[in-house]
Amino acid sequence: MRKTPKSPKTRRKPKTAGASRTPLVIGMDYGTDSVRCVIVDAADGHEVASAVHNYGRWARGLYCDAAENRFRQHPDDYLDGIRETVREALAQAPAGSAARVRGISIDTTGSTPVAVDRAGTPLSLRPEFRDNPNAMFVLWKDHTAIEEAARVNETARGWGGENFTRFSGGVYSSEWFWAKILHILRTDPAVREAAFSWVEHCDWMSAVLTGKTDPLAIPRSRCAAGHKAMWNEAFGGLPSEDFLVRVDPLLGGLRKRLYRQTVTADAAVGTLSPAWARELGLRRDVVVGSGAFDAHMGAVGGQIEPHVLVKIMGTSTCDMLIAPHADVGDRLIAGICGQVDGSIVPGMVGMEAGQSAFGDVYAWFKTVLMWPLDAIAASHERIDKRTHARVRRAVSDRVLPELARAAEKLGPGAGGLTALDWINGRRTPDANQALTGAIAGLRMGTDAARIYRALVEATAFGSRRISERFDEQGVKVKSVIALGGIASKSPFVMQVVADVLNAGIKVVRSQQACALGAAMFAAVVAGVHKTVQDAQRAMGSGFEAEYRPSPERAAEYDRLYARYQSLGRFVEQETVS
Amino acid sequence: MRKTPKSPKTRRKPKTAGASRTPLVIGMDYGTDSVRCVIVDAADGHEVASAVHNYGRWARGLYCDAAENRFRQHPDDYLDGIRETVREALAQAPAGSAARVRGISIDTTGSTPVAVDRAGTPLSLRPEFRDNPNAMFVLWKDHTAIEEAARVNETARGWGGENFTRFSGGVYSSEWFWAKILHILRTDPAVREAAFSWVEHCDWMSAVLTGKTDPLAIPRSRCAAGHKAMWNEAFGGLPSEDFLVRVDPLLGGLRKRLYRQTVTADAAVGTLSPAWARELGLRRDVVVGSGAFDAHMGAVGGQIEPHVLVKIMGTSTCDMLIAPHADVGDRLIAGICGQVDGSIVPGMVGMEAGQSAFGDVYAWFKTVLMWPLDAIAASHERIDKRTHARVRRAVSDRVLPELARAAEKLGPGAGGLTALDWINGRRTPDANQALTGAIAGLRMGTDAARIYRALVEATAFGSRRISERFDEQGVKVKSVIALGGIASKSPFVMQVVADVLNAGIKVVRSQQACALGAAMFAAVVAGVHKTVQDAQRAMGSGFEAEYRPSPERAAEYDRLYARYQSLGRFVEQETVS
Repeated sequence: MRKTPKSPKTRRKPKTAGASRTPLVIGMDYGTDSVRCVIVDAADGHEVASAVHNYGRWARGLYCDAAENRFRQHPDDYLDGIRETVREALAQAPAGSAARVRGISIDTTGSTPVAVDRAGTPLSLRPEFRDNPNAMFVLWKDHTAIEEAARVNETARGWGGENFTRFSGGVYSSEWFWAKILHILRTDPAVREAAFSWVEHCDWMSAVLTGKTDPLAIPRSRCAAGHKAMWNEAFGGLPSEDFLVRVDPLLGGLRKRLYRQTVTADAAVGTLSPAWARELGLRRDVVVGSGAFDAHMGAVGGQIEPHVLVKIMGTSTCDMLIAPHADVGDRLIAGICGQVDGSIVPGMVGMEAGQSAFGDVYAWFKTVLMWPLDAIAASHERIDKRTHARVRRAVSDRVLPELARAAEKLGPGAGGLTALDWINGRRTPDANQALTGAIAGLRMGTDAARIYRALVEATAFGSRRISERFDEQGVKVKSVIALGGIASKSPFVMQVVADVLNAGIKVVRSQQACALGAAMFAAVVAGVHKTVQDAQRAMGSGFEAEYRPSPERAAEYDRLYARYQSLGRFVEQETVS
Repeated sequence: MRKTPKSPKTRRKPKTAGASRTPLVIGMDYGTDSVRCVIVDAADGHEVASAVHNYGRWARGLYCDAAENRFRQHPDDYLDGIRETVREALAQAPAGSAARVRGISIDTTGSTPVAVDRAGTPLSLRPEFRDNPNAMFVLWKDHTAIEEAARVNETARGWGGENFTRFSGGVYSSEWFWAKILHILRTDPAVREAAFSWVEHCDWMSAVLTGKTDPLAIPRSRCAAGHKAMWNEAFGGLPSEDFLVRVDPLLGGLRKRLYRQTVTADAAVGTLSPAWARELGLRRDVVVGSGAFDAHMGAVGGQIEPHVLVKIMGTSTCDMLIAPHADVGDRLIAGICGQVDGSIVPGMVGMEAGQSAFGDVYAWFKTVLMWPLDAIAASHERIDKRTHARVRRAVSDRVLPELARAAEKLGPGAGGLTALDWINGRRTPDANQALTGAIAGLRMGTDAARIYRALVEATAFGSRRISERFDEQGVKVKSVIALGGIASKSPFVMQVVADVLNAGIKVVRSQQACALGAAMFAAVVAGVHKTVQDAQRAMGSGFEAEYRPSPERAAEYDRLYARYQSLGRFVEQETVS
């Protein structure tokens, strides 16, 4: 069912004299663990050079507490990352490339806000807050603000005024801007005192590069503001002061130190500051674009079009959809992460949904299966340390591929199993972080491969729920594009998703679609291309594979999907009660 | 909470001259994998010698197909077993012991019937059927007869006549006599032609030893007949010919080649045949008792008393209860495996319940966890065979003990998990083999130890359901006695069960309670003791430990039990629909 075109994964153009005149652009992609820099030819999108930097402090586990779901990142990790990757990529690129770079755009994770002082400096860059996690960026997946999100939702439902959650799917999440800010204001008086304003990671990066970090003047990303901070033109900007104070008086006065206006990612923020031009080895007239979230720029890099769902599939998924205003009208898409004018492609309604755990479901199961080797063999008096390390490594690398190989031989349903993918809560449809995963239908003969297959099917069913929600709400999903680690590396999973969705799925050829999307925006802000669509047409990587559904399996999955939904209803009821 | 008396596990009396005059008895216990022989002093129950024989053909996996739940045992495995163990035990016993043996009684698994010819010879002992699994004993856990059991139930509900399932808890099981017979009659014409009658393993053993194997004359065990073949005085014996023919015409005529009368296990069948006396090295006047099932004799060996629930806890559980007729009256205990006059202790109503999987639930989880070592490391090109075998063995031995150690440190509920123990169906209350297990409440942080704890709690909740069912139906459970592998070797599990039941549990000291129970019956049939109760008083082993519930944990388990029941209702609904 998988159709693989013959061309190689990464298009590297032969270096010809003619090519050396075309303008280059830089796309920066700040992910959860690392940052990528790609230097791309703006004329045809071919990758000239790239580099990756793993965040050093993060890799050492600093400032985080996984048991508490507290995940913070230090701004120095981000600054180290851009310095190192841009320099390294330029070093790899043909001589003279630096001078050809015309624009740079940046995507980051989000909502990942930080408290800044009057000058726009993250508090953790000041000596007195250097090691205070509350003075650092609060990473998207930090879940410390569950109570504060509940307070936002309670207030939105009960206060009688404007429902500010209505463009955010009707439910505010603990992963988002206001909840995170309030959590820190409530728990850290020192940060509360010192914080003048708060800035999203994607906005701060562009501000830093241009040297203009005044929090009152930083152009704020429409994408971050609209999806995570309840900003909307219909509200005249952010939620009203009244509302915010009713959520918690601690939020009082902050609104006027944030922003009224936002910009889409095709807007230029300025040019490189002299210091950063020197630091990066680039010209001072390099245009810096307004930032946006990785999934949003990734959707553009993945060649999103109206009514084409782009699924960014990794540990979790982000599912991105765009539609002309005329197609959405006044509809409010209930239960998704938000609908925001221009958040993905300027001029279109950008819609975001996603699954809290996708690859993480498989990673979780792998961790469970590794228990005998991790908890017993590691300290067994009859197994020496070297043998243990050797066996563990050899086995660990093979667990997921071998599970996939074994699971692929089984039929849908793996002999009567039904699983639920909510082991990290449910992001969409209808966010509920309190929900949990489940496995039903266990028998004596249920082995690890069967459980794995059921888990894969569960994640696919979770995807189907999202597609169905868009359809039900009147926003048609015409076709599906996938990118990310799972899309490119897990053919078994992708085939199951195609069968469950009963839809073909095209897999983006570029392995760096987010960074490529950022480069497309850089090409627009630098004036190489007029519109995002033009940049997509010129610079798109195309697709490396297409998964087509089997009608027989699709029919069987229809039946199994009903069981999945039934199990889901049960878990929802139990969670409420 | 565990109280361990100081005396050793097995009471071996010092050999004194005076002791050498007391009569000895032999208890034989045919289990699933092996047969045990104990030679016991009938005066005080101390074990003189014992021996175990593992079934040779069974150990090689012959005649079975686990994937199809087909489990058959060859009669030669049983004959080899008694010869070898009796000889070996006698060889270990003090000189002169053989001449002191006065009685022998036998328990076996059940329902484990076999097709026999006119002479009472199992068909598989005839050359033409030697390798035909359908001509062998159909082991208790064989589930090939699910359709036939459904047919029995359907007929019992719909035919308008006497409900013959009413003393069997209202549901006939695929593990039982008629379903198994019908399955073979339907599927094997050759066996159907050659089978004159059918005999339970426990009845056949006594018949063989006395040399009187005429199927029309073999004394039939009340226990086997009443619990598994719907025999009852109220029906005038077995279900009517009408009923049986309505189940399937293939059963027509069989009833009159089976039996009308049954005997309790305190009845003598006869004395050893000359051939078997010679074969075993025993006197010809050794009295052979009527057989019964292992759990029933085990309950006697475990010192069952009226209203004391004896739990035999191994891969599955058998839960045995006795009560005077006056306490049960006309009540029909719905949903248990049966209530039969004298099936455990003559003169009392014997009631049987049980869980289809107990230790098997833990064994199942261990198998899942061993997948990386079994499916990957075993054939990994970077791991040599010797290293693999060494690591696998070392880890395998440790998995369950280490899981218990880690799980013991967690609180009840293991962080929000609820599991269901029906991975091998549900035996009682309300038999339903189609039910399956489940695990709910999974989160990213759910590790193997948490899952294990949830599974242990699930098996304990399954035990609570059984106790509650007896109580609800008006048969009070005053206290609990446990025996079997789990009872003696898994203190963590036993403490959870005590907490969940909110009841103290005494663990029988004897590691061979079934064989000891058989020896008690042997002492009665040989005339050493007048009644089973007398034999229990004189020969009982006492208890090695007592688990007492913690009131705090018991209260918490009350709450978790409600979740377990809720999950159970969901799975039942899904299974029906």
